[in-house]
Amino acid sequence: MAARGKKLINDPNDVVTQFIEGLVETYPGLQYLDGFPEVKVVLRSDVKVGTYDKVAVICGGGSGHEPAHGGFVGQGMLTAAVSGDIFTSPPVNSILAAIRAVTGPKGCLLVVTNYTGDRLNFGLAAEEAKSEGYRVKMVIVGDDCALSQNQDIAGRRGLAGTILVNKVAGAAAAAGLPLEEVAEQARHASELVGTMGVALSVCTLPGQGTSDRLGPEQIELGLGIHGEPGTAVTELQPVDVVVTRVLKQILSPETQYVPISRGDRVILLTNGLAATPIMELMIATRKAVHELQLEYGVATDRVYTGSLMTSLDMQGFSISLMKSDTTILQCLDAFTKAPCWPAGTDGDRQKTAKIAVPAPASCAMKSDKVLQQSRELTKQGCILEASIEAGAKEIIRIKDSLNEWDSKVGDGDCGTAMYRGAIAILEDMKKCYPMNDAAETVNEIGATVRRVMRGTTGILYDILCKAAYASLKDTKTVEAKHWANALQASISAISKYGGAREGYRTMLDALIPASKFLRET
Amino acid sequence: MAARGKKLINDPNDVVTQFIEGLVETYPGLQYLDGFPEVKVVLRSDVKVGTYDKVAVICGGGSGHEPAHGGFVGQGMLTAAVSGDIFTSPPVNSILAAIRAVTGPKGCLLVVTNYTGDRLNFGLAAEEAKSEGYRVKMVIVGDDCALSQNQDIAGRRGLAGTILVNKVAGAAAAAGLPLEEVAEQARHASELVGTMGVALSVCTLPGQGTSDRLGPEQIELGLGIHGEPGTAVTELQPVDVVVTRVLKQILSPETQYVPISRGDRVILLTNGLAATPIMELMIATRKAVHELQLEYGVATDRVYTGSLMTSLDMQGFSISLMKSDTTILQCLDAFTKAPCWPAGTDGDRQKTAKIAVPAPASCAMKSDKVLQQSRELTKQGCILEASIEAGAKEIIRIKDSLNEWDSKVGDGDCGTAMYRGAIAILEDMKKCYPMNDAAETVNEIGATVRRVMRGTTGILYDILCKAAYASLKDTKTVEAKHWANALQASISAISKYGGAREGYRTMLDALIPASKFLRET
Repeated sequence: MAARGKKLINDPNDVVTQFIEGLVETYPGLQYLDGFPEVKVVLRSDVKVGTYDKVAVICGGGSGHEPAHGGFVGQGMLTAAVSGDIFTSPPVNSILAAIRAVTGPKGCLLVVTNYTGDRLNFGLAAEEAKSEGYRVKMVIVGDDCALSQNQDIAGRRGLAGTILVNKVAGAAAAAGLPLEEVAEQARHASELVGTMGVALSVCTLPGQGTSDRLGPEQIELGLGIHGEPGTAVTELQPVDVVVTRVLKQILSPETQYVPISRGDRVILLTNGLAATPIMELMIATRKAVHELQLEYGVATDRVYTGSLMTSLDMQGFSISLMKSDTTILQCLDAFTKAPCWPAGTDGDRQKTAKIAVPAPASCAMKSDKVLQQSRELTKQGCILEASIEAGAKEIIRIKDSLNEWDSKVGDGDCGTAMYRGAIAILEDMKKCYPMNDAAETVNEIGATVRRVMRGTTGILYDILCKAAYASLKDTKTVEAKHWANALQASISAISKYGGAREGYRTMLDALIPASKFLRET
Repeated sequence: MAARGKKLINDPNDVVTQFIEGLVETYPGLQYLDGFPEVKVVLRSDVKVGTYDKVAVICGGGSGHEPAHGGFVGQGMLTAAVSGDIFTSPPVNSILAAIRAVTGPKGCLLVVTNYTGDRLNFGLAAEEAKSEGYRVKMVIVGDDCALSQNQDIAGRRGLAGTILVNKVAGAAAAAGLPLEEVAEQARHASELVGTMGVALSVCTLPGQGTSDRLGPEQIELGLGIHGEPGTAVTELQPVDVVVTRVLKQILSPETQYVPISRGDRVILLTNGLAATPIMELMIATRKAVHELQLEYGVATDRVYTGSLMTSLDMQGFSISLMKSDTTILQCLDAFTKAPCWPAGTDGDRQKTAKIAVPAPASCAMKSDKVLQQSRELTKQGCILEASIEAGAKEIIRIKDSLNEWDSKVGDGDCGTAMYRGAIAILEDMKKCYPMNDAAETVNEIGATVRRVMRGTTGILYDILCKAAYASLKDTKTVEAKHWANALQASISAISKYGGAREGYRTMLDALIPASKFLRET
């Protein structure tokens, strides 16, 4: 487990400030307050102090959950984000600085995750700001479905559902609503969302050792995003089983964490906890959408899949479900410039998710040709047949010596592979080559060779034939010069796609002199 | 190292198709061809077979690099993406299916990473498509700066720079340019970009064991994105040192991998390899931008930071530098609906990246008040002073018994903390409380208590005082009923921010009866 603690950082004490510096280098629409190390506030670069004409929406909390919340600052979502140190609530002065920096006459909404430290620090900052004359409201998000509702005074923890609440609040504010209504919509959204997480590994704090709480075959359910132990440890299972279990807990009719029942429509957020590849998150999303539809009779209006609210380097994900309604949907779909809000997720699907593999453009035509095999050979057809037969027989004859030569530089199977090709060509020629059409016959030889020789060699010979075919196919009567041009085209194609040139000790070293000779004579 | 192999998947053979199913659930603008398991093609849902009126741009390759390339399908970037199995080039028929599905009269450009399998499979598909009548061009990307340029015939590998080339090609196609020009712009971009990676861990193939190639204190430089060993293994170092080393290699004047020199402008892509938190990527970006400016005299026009072209669950990142010019910049900034192209990165910064922490709105006023301490006490001021003194002295007197009671339910320091607060209040009152202004005095008491009591308790008492202050401050003459209202406001604030109610065994259980009594009398 030691390797899990590896991090690409400098001084563990500087990770948050250096993150913010990189964030604003990446996103020109963001800036930050010059108050490091205490004040760590990211804000929109287009909002001037004291003059913002909409309700400001501010979120924040301890760091370690990137891109939350700095990456969600932008028109249509957060106006500012306040970061504390890793897993530590930001101090009151830092929150106050954010409020002063972005709040105009319409006031500001603080969206706060339900942890005591955050509630108190944001609460005190709100009271201080009010005493300075600002209009301030606060909404607390507690979307955790792992802990029982009345387990303790602290209540349900704020998890990834917070991101959805922020989007709703940001859209309501951008629409020009007054503070009371923005707060009301945020509160409404917060009551409709539930979240539960699963982890494969515990996060490691910068500069600290790695927890060995989870064994190599164990996963943890219902965890917190600060390394808090989960509610259950279980064996590593297929992700479909894990998703089923998580959905069951969120949608439990006993606890009624979220007011979602059969026939409802929902919003799904599959949130990576940082070290989980997007491939795995998408696989979980796929299962969740199907399971919601099939087992719960719940259709999914929108799906968000990505690492939005993370936990340092934790492996795992959380699933959030929010009951969908018209207002929520409008807010989630509303335009935003927040860089880390998932793009391309808005709107309903206009078309089916899968379409048929298109048939080849010339398929019908081609099938005709194959059937219409030349019974009566023209003079040209006879010459072509004789040439192919001679070539193939020669290859069959020299099979062993080709193998012997190949064994000096390679794996000694060149003759065997060529032999397999030659035999198949002789067979297929009798069955279906349209011998009166030189171009089509060359094309068919390519197909035969690729089928039986396989691998890189098969593809190379097929490229050779395809290029010759393309060169020959519009020629009515194929003469020597056309064959010379076709071979030249073949050599160009092999060189282009294979990346080799003369002298690289490939088949080109034989083909190029042959082509030269053919063109000269 | 065993835990590294943990994955949230089902059958290892289904990871690619299940990923695609999740991808299209997430993004309604995408669809896929119904040809699983062989044909794994993601395409724009707004492009009809055979009728697309722009040049189609198609990229692809082995899977395991998500979100590349399916996540980059969308107007303004890729028209389709073809996936092979994990780290395996897609078969010719699959590539052909993609070409047939999206290519219209203007033809298609295949952007191919420089691996033999991809070159040959895409090459053969291109030749077959041409023989079917499609107009096809191919551009090969080899941006790797770790291997020497002439090390072997295969040449430089295609890495994350491919994403930038795809964006350039997609924008050129969206602008309506003909195939030749789209191909030329893609080729131009591919010659301007260089990439080098660093890894903390080796990726694990689904269903397979974990490599122990890297020790717990080692990192690898110049790695491939398929688990190929890097060019150097070194000790884990601060990320700033690592970034310096990577930039030095990319910009080496000896190798001239990229044509970037002092005075030039560049595009920077800090690409996560999958399991690296965005925090660490941003820290690397911060260093790269500074180092480019300070050490190389190179300004950064655009910065992209994110996990765009990954390697299963590998920890680490790569840095790509592309020489910037007007055309490149326009293409990178051009509108796209590709969901995984980094949003919010376009345009130049209009404002400075950091702004001053705003001063409190009433700062000057407040400072005045503090200086203007009431020398002559009014009658009200005298009463207030006497009351505070009496209260504080009583707390000092009962310090030990408070501690004793607290030790029965807590850590027994309640009396000591209260004593510290009381002493400080008595001191500060003499120094600076404006005793003739009851509201301001209450406010100052809050500040005193928070300073000396610290922690949760300090914040709670300050919230109590702030709420009372807000309640009192517009009252000219403070009478008993105002005090009663103020206490009520304090209780509401503590309950709201602290999350407790009556009966939770908090300070509210003493304050609520006190408030009741005060209001009744």
